[in-house]
Amino acid sequence: MSELRLNRITGDWVIIAKERAKRPDEFSHEQAVKEQLPHFVAHCPFCPGNEEKTPAECFRLEEKGVWLIRSVPNKYSVLAPQGNIIRQGHGVQKFMDGFGLHEVIIETPKHDKSIALLPEEQVVRIMLTYQDRFHHFYRSSGIEYVTLFKNHGKEAGTSLEHPHSQIVGLPVMPGQVRDRVQDALQSYDEFGECLYCWTLQEELEDSQRIVQENESFVAFIPYAALSPFHLWIFPKKHNASFGHLTDSELLDLAVILQDVLWKLHQGLQAPDFNFVIRSLSPEEGSVKYFHWYLAIVPRLTKMAGFELGTGMYINSALPEESAAYLRGLVALKP
Amino acid sequence: MSELRLNRITGDWVIIAKERAKRPDEFSHEQAVKEQLPHFVAHCPFCPGNEEKTPAECFRLEEKGVWLIRSVPNKYSVLAPQGNIIRQGHGVQKFMDGFGLHEVIIETPKHDKSIALLPEEQVVRIMLTYQDRFHHFYRSSGIEYVTLFKNHGKEAGTSLEHPHSQIVGLPVMPGQVRDRVQDALQSYDEFGECLYCWTLQEELEDSQRIVQENESFVAFIPYAALSPFHLWIFPKKHNASFGHLTDSELLDLAVILQDVLWKLHQGLQAPDFNFVIRSLSPEEGSVKYFHWYLAIVPRLTKMAGFELGTGMYINSALPEESAAYLRGLVALKP
Repeated sequence: MSELRLNRITGDWVIIAKERAKRPDEFSHEQAVKEQLPHFVAHCPFCPGNEEKTPAECFRLEEKGVWLIRSVPNKYSVLAPQGNIIRQGHGVQKFMDGFGLHEVIIETPKHDKSIALLPEEQVVRIMLTYQDRFHHFYRSSGIEYVTLFKNHGKEAGTSLEHPHSQIVGLPVMPGQVRDRVQDALQSYDEFGECLYCWTLQEELEDSQRIVQENESFVAFIPYAALSPFHLWIFPKKHNASFGHLTDSELLDLAVILQDVLWKLHQGLQAPDFNFVIRSLSPEEGSVKYFHWYLAIVPRLTKMAGFELGTGMYINSALPEESAAYLRGLVALKP
Repeated sequence: MSELRLNRITGDWVIIAKERAKRPDEFSHEQAVKEQLPHFVAHCPFCPGNEEKTPAECFRLEEKGVWLIRSVPNKYSVLAPQGNIIRQGHGVQKFMDGFGLHEVIIETPKHDKSIALLPEEQVVRIMLTYQDRFHHFYRSSGIEYVTLFKNHGKEAGTSLEHPHSQIVGLPVMPGQVRDRVQDALQSYDEFGECLYCWTLQEELEDSQRIVQENESFVAFIPYAALSPFHLWIFPKKHNASFGHLTDSELLDLAVILQDVLWKLHQGLQAPDFNFVIRSLSPEEGSVKYFHWYLAIVPRLTKMAGFELGTGMYINSALPEESAAYLRGLVALKP
């Protein structure tokens, strides 16, 4: 019999297909074999030599005059850096200008090197860039929420092959984020401790769903994972904002993120995936009830009418089995 | 400049790509041309002659001993009709048996005839079947919420070509549904009228986003549609439950649903889509603050990291333009 498990952090009951769950290698075999990408593509706007194809850069890391990472405004952003953030409209209809900030972070000059395949020091540079842009966005006037994410592959919503992440600064707090923060606050009021710290402590005690751990972070497939290999990386030290990372934590984050992405790459035949950082602003970083984290969602299944109509998920993989599979893979990086 | 519009019913701010919006025919041209399906497929479990390949049927409509519609338990359901609905577990981990009901409604004996292409009387039979199963599911012990939906095409999450819908009875109220009902109640408390009735009235007065209308229903693309051609069909008469439809309303629903699906089929090159009925139980049907409706989601774009990480949507189509395009198509049914 399958099981309904409550994901307290997202607030969703998840149907875990226990007996009918697919084996981890079945997900791997279902993946289409991906073509090997070239190191350089002449018409790629993110490859070296094509810098004039992007808007003027806002941030770069370089070595001997050669760029290693660039952050540029998204040429096709639907948000504009100027606009009126006063809510307008009447009756049910409420609107405001499409104000906001949107940059694309070009993670490497190499067209074919995703985070799983980069040298560790380059992943550290990506995390440094994330930190810089995160702080910069939150310092900008009118920005209420900043989201940092990566779309890797067509199923994950990008057709641009060259490795990149995105950061968007919004003039509103997204309703879903607000709901989760309020749920976390309510849980804190009821139990007197951070729901995320509590979850992490239980996951560590249970240990079945842990994929990787280091000094500062734990990567695990949550008890009520919403989809196959849905994975969370939690900082061990309570903090509500990604903006508060110390240098050593930043290094630990780079290491664990790369290890986990490498394991997914190796164990699931380079699946398309998204990852996203869920965090409050640096100013709100000290609140006791929320805890920032990074969520990775391999795009192995499609959302259908059931998910759209209920917000609930059916997970065709057993979290304990998925975690054991990833744990068992040796992170033998190239 | 683009616009942020508040969808009060879902609670989401939607980024409407106003200036950069794609034209309606661009969505059409992006669709891969679909192969013409055969009328009959020998190995299809839903084609006539293969009735023994499905579990024993729960409901059928027939004419002279030949079935026209069948509803059968989903052979691959992750929910079982027996189970313990007591919540178990300790600490953060809460679970219960995967109890629930799940039927597949085979909409027609013909392998190639989706709702857009069926004779009207057959669509009426589908609606009658929906009504029957909806009531039956809600009469079943332990069921807290019933969702009725259709997945059409691979992008919409189904690989089964033969036209079918699904109905699932859950032992829990989905969190997302609960949130929307609570928001609707709060709005009712604040404004003294049903948020959905109010929305419908404004849409009718504004008239730009109306696609189709008949005696009992209005089909429109909401002011803050979450995705291109995201479409709602609202009953004009306030009612919180799909279970309360009169015979003439049921006929009107069949007509408007088919007209709209035909327009999408014709105007967007037979896109993959989901639709879902959002409703409370027949027992709750008289509440003043909620209003049942049917939502259609053509799967023209992919959900990416931005949507996953914020719950917000970017709509690359202008609702007013999409509605005008569909309104202009003549529903010349085959």
